[in-house]
Amino acid sequence: MPELRQNPATKDWVIIATERAKRPEDIGAGTVKQPPNKVETCPFCVGHEGRTPNEILAYRTYGTQKNSPGWWIRIIPNAFPALIPQGVPERNKIEDFFTYMDGLGEHEVIIESPDHHQTIATMEPKQVEEIFLAYRERYQTLSRDPRYEMVLLFKNHGIAAGTSLHHPHSQIIATPITPIHVRNRIEAAMHFFDDNGTCVYCEMVAKELKLKERVVMESDNFVAFEPFASRAPFETWVMPKKHHSSFEIISAEDTKELAFIMRSVLGKLHVSLNNPDYNYVIRSAPVHEKGVEYYHWHIMILPRVSAVAGFELGSGIYINTVIPEAAAKFLRETAAR
Amino acid sequence: MPELRQNPATKDWVIIATERAKRPEDIGAGTVKQPPNKVETCPFCVGHEGRTPNEILAYRTYGTQKNSPGWWIRIIPNAFPALIPQGVPERNKIEDFFTYMDGLGEHEVIIESPDHHQTIATMEPKQVEEIFLAYRERYQTLSRDPRYEMVLLFKNHGIAAGTSLHHPHSQIIATPITPIHVRNRIEAAMHFFDDNGTCVYCEMVAKELKLKERVVMESDNFVAFEPFASRAPFETWVMPKKHHSSFEIISAEDTKELAFIMRSVLGKLHVSLNNPDYNYVIRSAPVHEKGVEYYHWHIMILPRVSAVAGFELGSGIYINTVIPEAAAKFLRETAAR
Repeated sequence: MPELRQNPATKDWVIIATERAKRPEDIGAGTVKQPPNKVETCPFCVGHEGRTPNEILAYRTYGTQKNSPGWWIRIIPNAFPALIPQGVPERNKIEDFFTYMDGLGEHEVIIESPDHHQTIATMEPKQVEEIFLAYRERYQTLSRDPRYEMVLLFKNHGIAAGTSLHHPHSQIIATPITPIHVRNRIEAAMHFFDDNGTCVYCEMVAKELKLKERVVMESDNFVAFEPFASRAPFETWVMPKKHHSSFEIISAEDTKELAFIMRSVLGKLHVSLNNPDYNYVIRSAPVHEKGVEYYHWHIMILPRVSAVAGFELGSGIYINTVIPEAAAKFLRETAAR
Repeated sequence: MPELRQNPATKDWVIIATERAKRPEDIGAGTVKQPPNKVETCPFCVGHEGRTPNEILAYRTYGTQKNSPGWWIRIIPNAFPALIPQGVPERNKIEDFFTYMDGLGEHEVIIESPDHHQTIATMEPKQVEEIFLAYRERYQTLSRDPRYEMVLLFKNHGIAAGTSLHHPHSQIIATPITPIHVRNRIEAAMHFFDDNGTCVYCEMVAKELKLKERVVMESDNFVAFEPFASRAPFETWVMPKKHHSSFEIISAEDTKELAFIMRSVLGKLHVSLNNPDYNYVIRSAPVHEKGVEYYHWHIMILPRVSAVAGFELGSGIYINTVIPEAAAKFLRETAAR
């Protein structure tokens, strides 16, 4: 089974994913990029339900059978899971120094459409609403499991973003730990709250709405903007205007509004950058820390148009060649299709 | 000039590199991968010295002219610098919330050989020694400038590692800030020291040498090993056995020994993974914090054989498909050419 290991010096956790394990000698060959998969071989296409693990949940026409056509959203366990729902959430030590634990967790795939060739930017608005309602449903279910500390929803679009499956899908992973990367961000926000008595993300929303120059679009309850310190060209954050630490509590109405904003922003990126590879991630507080005053959930969209090289790896400082205000202006003036 | 900006919520710094600035509409085109550059057009090749900025330093045959052939190591300012040695190291605020400063710093290129087709793995040992002696010389010079907080030496080898210039070269960047990514690691080591009275990296060296299973090779004063929590297949750390916080103080003798280890490890990777793309970074304490008991300089080598996708971006947890002990065994048994 997979194993979680922590670096004693940096405190970074990694997953040693034995389910996906490669022999060392196979790694060199693994660097060859694969072409996008085709409909005939796609396990996510309608009619191919038998090629995936059994579905966990599907939004489907009344009366159609599980694991058969009739669905418009389908959620399945990842066939090559990073973490699996077995084992115990307990730390162990080697030599009283190296910490590890069972690779306990959940790893699900949200198939966003029966149609291989769609992407959020090109789907009907109603379909995008259904995707976000499915996110909400799975987030709520997984975050109730007391074994898990973090539930992360994310999407890899395109080869540079880490996927080889072209069929539109997102993923959700629940982990039995809060990783240091997340903890460090929460701690920074906690210090801001303790110093200023306000949520730093609420302040950010207020400043961005006042200055306007980095805002891409807004709705009643959400704003999309290029962060002041965008790490890459066209990095975009979508944030609720109202404070809440976790995506979990979002209402059904707000979920639909969020879907509208996400479809619009991804549509603008699709048109401006010619269907760029991108990732997005929904960042929330750890699941047992919901309701905190100092953290504010949001979605980070990162087009993968620039390389992460040695300087970024060593310093954590990203070099961005596009001024965020110029990127925001460009996206404001681009119509989604 | 370039600008350093800090995200108020995450505390991450980024460089907005206007010298390299692209118009927003040029970004989509930038995703097309370029083929490796050729000798005819290579600015780093011998005889093409006029195509680069004037050299800062060169190791060259006595009597040969600056910026002309006769060198075996040549150090030049980066023609497209991320930071430039102008401006003042002072923080400014916008709206009492967003912090920025002049993009003050140094960005140099170390041309590692006159020969376009060499790489450290295939060079003569003497040439690799000269590279590391050049690193040491530039590190010492730049770290004496009171305006700078961090000096980072790194190498991008291959397109997946962020370079399009095939000619063997490394880079060095001096920054007027200590980035949060580096500070967080130092803080973790500081807490370990305060709790245990020992350097966590010294402990790591002792444990790895005792357990042996993750050691790739060792010499009198250095050890190369796969970290217990390797983030990617064949991640390798090269660490001095003796405690010191900064690369700066390394002796000339130890520099040669380090060059031997680096050439051997990169040679093993070159053979095992068929010349993989990789980055390496020399991690040291910030330049005004040298001599600290809790940090220990080392080199992190990261083959770029797996993708960073949404999960890694959102959680900081890397998924590694090769067991580090298996990778170490494989490298131990592989001879460098």
